[in-house]
Amino acid sequence: MAKYSIGIDYGTLSGRAVLVDISNGNEIATEILEYKHGVMDEYLCGTDIKLPLDYALQHPRDYIDVLEYCVPAVIKKSGVHKSDIIGLGVDFTSCTLLSVYKDGTPLCYDEKFNLVPCSYVKLWKDHSSALQAKRLTDLARAKGMKFIERYGGNISSEWLVPKVMHILDNAPEIYESADFFIEAADWIVWQLTGVQTRSSCTSGYKALWHASEGYPPKEFFAELDPRLENLVTEKLDAPVLPLGSRAGVLTKDMADKLGLIEGIAVAVGNIDGHCTVPAAKVLSPGQMLLILGTSACFMTLDERELDVKEIAGYVKDGMIPDYYGYEAGQACMGDHFAWYIKNMLPYSYKLEADALGISEMQYIFDKASKLGPGECGLIALDWWNGNRALAGGSSLSGSIIGMNLSTKPEDIFRALVEATAYGARVIIDNYKKYSLKINEIHAAGGIAEKNPFVMQLYADILGCDIMVSGSPQAAALGAAIFGSVAAGKSAGGYDNVVEAAEKMGKLKDVVYKPNLENKDIYDSLYNEFCFLFDYFGRGKNKIMKKLKNIKE
Amino acid sequence: MAKYSIGIDYGTLSGRAVLVDISNGNEIATEILEYKHGVMDEYLCGTDIKLPLDYALQHPRDYIDVLEYCVPAVIKKSGVHKSDIIGLGVDFTSCTLLSVYKDGTPLCYDEKFNLVPCSYVKLWKDHSSALQAKRLTDLARAKGMKFIERYGGNISSEWLVPKVMHILDNAPEIYESADFFIEAADWIVWQLTGVQTRSSCTSGYKALWHASEGYPPKEFFAELDPRLENLVTEKLDAPVLPLGSRAGVLTKDMADKLGLIEGIAVAVGNIDGHCTVPAAKVLSPGQMLLILGTSACFMTLDERELDVKEIAGYVKDGMIPDYYGYEAGQACMGDHFAWYIKNMLPYSYKLEADALGISEMQYIFDKASKLGPGECGLIALDWWNGNRALAGGSSLSGSIIGMNLSTKPEDIFRALVEATAYGARVIIDNYKKYSLKINEIHAAGGIAEKNPFVMQLYADILGCDIMVSGSPQAAALGAAIFGSVAAGKSAGGYDNVVEAAEKMGKLKDVVYKPNLENKDIYDSLYNEFCFLFDYFGRGKNKIMKKLKNIKE
Repeated sequence: MAKYSIGIDYGTLSGRAVLVDISNGNEIATEILEYKHGVMDEYLCGTDIKLPLDYALQHPRDYIDVLEYCVPAVIKKSGVHKSDIIGLGVDFTSCTLLSVYKDGTPLCYDEKFNLVPCSYVKLWKDHSSALQAKRLTDLARAKGMKFIERYGGNISSEWLVPKVMHILDNAPEIYESADFFIEAADWIVWQLTGVQTRSSCTSGYKALWHASEGYPPKEFFAELDPRLENLVTEKLDAPVLPLGSRAGVLTKDMADKLGLIEGIAVAVGNIDGHCTVPAAKVLSPGQMLLILGTSACFMTLDERELDVKEIAGYVKDGMIPDYYGYEAGQACMGDHFAWYIKNMLPYSYKLEADALGISEMQYIFDKASKLGPGECGLIALDWWNGNRALAGGSSLSGSIIGMNLSTKPEDIFRALVEATAYGARVIIDNYKKYSLKINEIHAAGGIAEKNPFVMQLYADILGCDIMVSGSPQAAALGAAIFGSVAAGKSAGGYDNVVEAAEKMGKLKDVVYKPNLENKDIYDSLYNEFCFLFDYFGRGKNKIMKKLKNIKE
Repeated sequence: MAKYSIGIDYGTLSGRAVLVDISNGNEIATEILEYKHGVMDEYLCGTDIKLPLDYALQHPRDYIDVLEYCVPAVIKKSGVHKSDIIGLGVDFTSCTLLSVYKDGTPLCYDEKFNLVPCSYVKLWKDHSSALQAKRLTDLARAKGMKFIERYGGNISSEWLVPKVMHILDNAPEIYESADFFIEAADWIVWQLTGVQTRSSCTSGYKALWHASEGYPPKEFFAELDPRLENLVTEKLDAPVLPLGSRAGVLTKDMADKLGLIEGIAVAVGNIDGHCTVPAAKVLSPGQMLLILGTSACFMTLDERELDVKEIAGYVKDGMIPDYYGYEAGQACMGDHFAWYIKNMLPYSYKLEADALGISEMQYIFDKASKLGPGECGLIALDWWNGNRALAGGSSLSGSIIGMNLSTKPEDIFRALVEATAYGARVIIDNYKKYSLKINEIHAAGGIAEKNPFVMQLYADILGCDIMVSGSPQAAALGAAIFGSVAAGKSAGGYDNVVEAAEKMGKLKDVVYKPNLENKDIYDSLYNEFCFLFDYFGRGKNKIMKKLKNIKE
């Protein structure tokens, strides 16, 4: 009898459930729900409270809606009997942070706090904690704290501790009243199992936790702010379970709401990108997963623990058991293109797209794809959402250089696309500098799936073969893989992640190979990109920071 | 009995005639005609011949159409009797160059050449001669030629000699067949008077001519290219008359076509910007004329001959008799904003402008005007049409720095406006560095006339009072002033330009004064602008040039 696992994947704008056949990874049914409150970055939902610059909040009720709507829907659609569904896995954007009471209730549900922006979910791309991230980084460096080396020497404003510090600085009553600060992935698992656990992946990559060293010591937190001294023991403390293990089992209450059997296995929560690693069959060193979504991630594996600088971090067993999982990121990818469409695509192009019956995005991609390498005459720096690798990264910003009166919209758009690829090459070259091998790129995410032009451009600029994930919802497939491992072989699942991924993971047949003629031109342009990257990102010119300061 | 003068003003897209009352400068009637062939920068008119990058051509028939349509029209409209019209003045964009036969017929009228792009008028903003300008500049510097110091050490690709060199290099048959290369201003005067003369203004600012030194020596031209040895004597040679003098009198044939009296005075041809100097009452040192049109000009006067670097040039009697007229320019102003509207204004903004019943330009200016200084978070370099002052200026290009996902269209547009003002300040600071006084700015041009937001922004950024020309067609008024001086007091006109300008020139009552609070913020942003200006414009980073080379 076939067995099934459900992967539940939470993205930036919507969540989805996918019901997967454990024997072959086939996706039997999918259901998506957009978040009713979306991303709050101008006003607090349902109020005229204007949010400060760089806030990006969400409403946790939207996440529960995804569970209650999508899970029953996929069961119904698939026609599978609930007794054949043996496991659940969850992945989430990260660090997406909730402030909750002891019983898991978010503070923003409380009438006392529901007009305080800091009581809501701080989404991964909330960059309001830039100052806090800098304070944390500076102190860790000044004190020679070893932990910071695991994170390329730099703590991102997107992560848990800066977000908590920001809450403390800006809404001390929320800090005071919160019993726990918890990643959304772990919070959903808590809602499913009734027990709070934390994931080695979310804790390792985003919360400064290490399997043998734990969190940074309380003396360090006290020096950061005396009120933070007991942050770990008072507001983070819950068992951290290794990725691939079982967090618990489904409660009766939840089983009833979702139409499942009480007591089935629920996997430890995972991050969306990290969940995609096994789904796209990145299972050994030399392979790299490139996720091209709203932002971009670069994940690779090695047996060795290497102090790679200018990356997001590395965590043992953080992606695939027995390997160190190395992660680096570009903060802006699909978001970048969407920004262009909203803010720069001219009227005449919109009309032409309408006349052709295609989307504006499709239209501008088509126009840009007709240009040759270098033909746009422009170079852009892709820092529209900061840079995750460089010190002071969230104060870095986007640039376009080379415009003249003949520059056309497609020139600009092509430059933005090329910039993301140059930015990707900087990250890969940095991995190589620290002796990580990158021989084969597996790409996932909407752009990888749907945009052969971008994939060929990336192959040309990166100078490397690129394969594409076989699932259009690879993160959810990955969550289902972890669900099947949480269930274990005895229940009809698997006992380890690699074995599960070999059966359930998927790649397309197509391989994008570099066009060597294009690559030569791009090599030369990439040199120029690197000059600008160093000048604005590492050099003495602090203009981007100054512009941001003056604006604020 | 009142006497009248007609000013004929040739702009980039249209020409106009204005009939002016000599006693008070009042404009009695105006008529404008758009050029039928416009600016040819993609295809040669009426053909599918694709023009190379940076070409900008025009058809000389369009200029004659302006004469034959607009002059009779203003006479008719005004009801003035032709016998009361005593003089004609002409101004033109410059260097706008024709290749003509001995009798003045343009080579592009010849069937032999009418498919050869280089036989057409090369408009001022044709930048195809960048390489030639560099060769000329390099050689002049290497040989220590004194003339180059009059031009800030740099010869622009927009000027006569580089344009002629470009014709020689790219269409030697046109060079060979042309009997004369002549500025459009001087060509129109030739058509009116039947006699070829040249203006001290066009020759001085754009053709390397000097009142006492003449043109550079033939040995210099020979070294540039042996075929150019006799350029001056064979293809430029015609009397150069000082500005403010009479070029000749109207021929019978032209008088009949235009509805005027044969034999009335025709002034020496002038450049549009230079013609505006007396019209906007810039008549003594300390005053500067700022013209904000498709491009921008900065003109000021001094008794001293000063070797000011990084300017376009200085010419004795080049603007107002008895003064050295100093000129500097920004290659892109209104063009810049028009480029934005065409290539970047998003669909939603166009819809909102339509709903309000205002132009897209008005709409984006309104949105941008609501932002405070520094609020856009951006800095742009205004080099969309190169930079006229710096070595290698036409290979410099525009840049925008500081964009992020919250950047809105009005932020970008405001940054472009601010960039033009920062660029203006660089030019004024440079004048001051060489001890020219700039105490009072008189502004002219469409933007000065119509856009109080831009004028206030300029006052804030330049830190200087700004007055505005009282005539919406100041260049044409200036041409009429010169027409009245060509006629002379005996015919009812004037005997000198200052006297004429004091009567006929016009300023509005309004004065824009710097807001000191804004100025402080802008001072700090201007510092950043200067860093970028130096880095990309004068420094070692040749990225803009490289991008252009790769594109080509």
